[in-house]
Amino acid sequence: MAQVMDLQTFMKERKKLVEDALFSYMNDVEAPQVLVESMIYSLKAGGKRLRPLLVLATLNSFGKSEKLGLPVACAVEMIHTYSLIHDDLPSMDDDDYRRGKPTNHKVYGEAMAILAGDALLTYSFEVMEDLLNQGVSPIKVVTLMKELSKASGPIGMVGGQVADMEGEGKALALEDLEYIHRNKTGKLLGYSIVAGAILGDATEEQISKLYAFADHLGLAFQIRDDILDIEGDAEKIGKPIGSDTLNEKVTYPSLLTMGGAKEKLEYHIYEAKRLLADIPLESDLLSQLCDLIAKRDH
Amino acid sequence: MAQVMDLQTFMKERKKLVEDALFSYMNDVEAPQVLVESMIYSLKAGGKRLRPLLVLATLNSFGKSEKLGLPVACAVEMIHTYSLIHDDLPSMDDDDYRRGKPTNHKVYGEAMAILAGDALLTYSFEVMEDLLNQGVSPIKVVTLMKELSKASGPIGMVGGQVADMEGEGKALALEDLEYIHRNKTGKLLGYSIVAGAILGDATEEQISKLYAFADHLGLAFQIRDDILDIEGDAEKIGKPIGSDTLNEKVTYPSLLTMGGAKEKLEYHIYEAKRLLADIPLESDLLSQLCDLIAKRDH
Repeated sequence: MAQVMDLQTFMKERKKLVEDALFSYMNDVEAPQVLVESMIYSLKAGGKRLRPLLVLATLNSFGKSEKLGLPVACAVEMIHTYSLIHDDLPSMDDDDYRRGKPTNHKVYGEAMAILAGDALLTYSFEVMEDLLNQGVSPIKVVTLMKELSKASGPIGMVGGQVADMEGEGKALALEDLEYIHRNKTGKLLGYSIVAGAILGDATEEQISKLYAFADHLGLAFQIRDDILDIEGDAEKIGKPIGSDTLNEKVTYPSLLTMGGAKEKLEYHIYEAKRLLADIPLESDLLSQLCDLIAKRDH
Repeated sequence: MAQVMDLQTFMKERKKLVEDALFSYMNDVEAPQVLVESMIYSLKAGGKRLRPLLVLATLNSFGKSEKLGLPVACAVEMIHTYSLIHDDLPSMDDDDYRRGKPTNHKVYGEAMAILAGDALLTYSFEVMEDLLNQGVSPIKVVTLMKELSKASGPIGMVGGQVADMEGEGKALALEDLEYIHRNKTGKLLGYSIVAGAILGDATEEQISKLYAFADHLGLAFQIRDDILDIEGDAEKIGKPIGSDTLNEKVTYPSLLTMGGAKEKLEYHIYEAKRLLADIPLESDLLSQLCDLIAKRDH
């Protein structure tokens, strides 16, 4: 059975667990020192570890040992981190700061930043193999590796990033915006939840409901992101606000007004919780995570 | 039993087989059109398809259906292609041409080239899952995915690329040069052979001998590359010669003289063939591939 637990305690404790595992995996990397340093630099600049925590919270909801999910948790965090390194590059968003620290290429140069990103992406699949050592069946490991590739590749995160780039300066409809966010951020968030469910021996029906739950959660996450870029506190976010307006990016507030965006956020959170309540599951932590995403200030 | 076959016929026929599979996998990618175009552009600019052919030639040597190896063959070609796209970027080698065609970023811009590379790398792991549909056991698929990640990540290809960059303008010893080439090119070539052997139900002993064989083959490949950069025909190679000298890179000829480099090339080819002859295997194709690598003019 899942333990009922306060979300703040869960996040604090599990964050340390995830980070310990993450840096332990990095300790195993026998590669040129500057490459390893550059990978670790960006991994250390990490924030809430939201994706890893979603893996563990889902496992917890299924009453399973969270330790089982650490390889997946670390893999998704590595992929998320690589995507930030590449997004920040001069030819992409050209950002000098991320979470209040100089971006990877500002410290290690552009070439090393590209390679550190490539290395994190590639290494994440090696880390996944460690699931075998947790007693996960080979067929599950293959499925989880394939789904990780789908969530982060051309039909997932990378595709979303391209659509986002292509959409800049263009008039987008709500469905275009949703395509971008579903792919750019939604699918990896969703994968984190579904991977936890697969490891938790979820039924097909549970997995399909959790997919739908994760879809709403992912869109809510992005709407909150868009709102924070206007109403947020630059110090808490760790980067200047107003960058979307500056880059003439279509956002939920620009498309729906701020009021409309906030309504949409509430709608997705409501739907996410409704779906969650419909799954027989100790889902208190996941439900609290919904509130956290809806109200986060960074 | 393996069919005894002329290498030229083998390469011509199998190249088409590999390319058909490669573009069929690309047809399945439902992503923004420009991303898919950019990925295909560089896949089409491909040359000899050496890595895929090594997979198939090894399977052939074990008397197995080569079709079994197509997912791996396509995955290694995608990874090789992504590495060329990223290597050519302005912040890396800054190359405008590759195999006589404008490089990816010259056509699609730097941001799209980075993303096309990321997408190819990520997609290659999804392609690997197709091995299950060939009847390969899940545990073998996991092993092959893990080894692919090792060969191409920080302790493989990416690590070699970093060591290569770090070594520029420095006085390197032969062992530094070998470290660079073992990792930058050797491990993915070696993986192609070992993956074929694993799919061919090789014994541990056969695999370990093929590892050693592949190591010599990989170093021979690189020495020939260094020689071609001085003595090659720019038209055949598809890029200007003399770039190593221009970039003050340490190469086998610069370290050992041209005569010494050629001796070293012969030594590695001799050792590769000696190891190959020691494995009870229909290895005629692999042996012919050694000669091809030693004598290639592009």
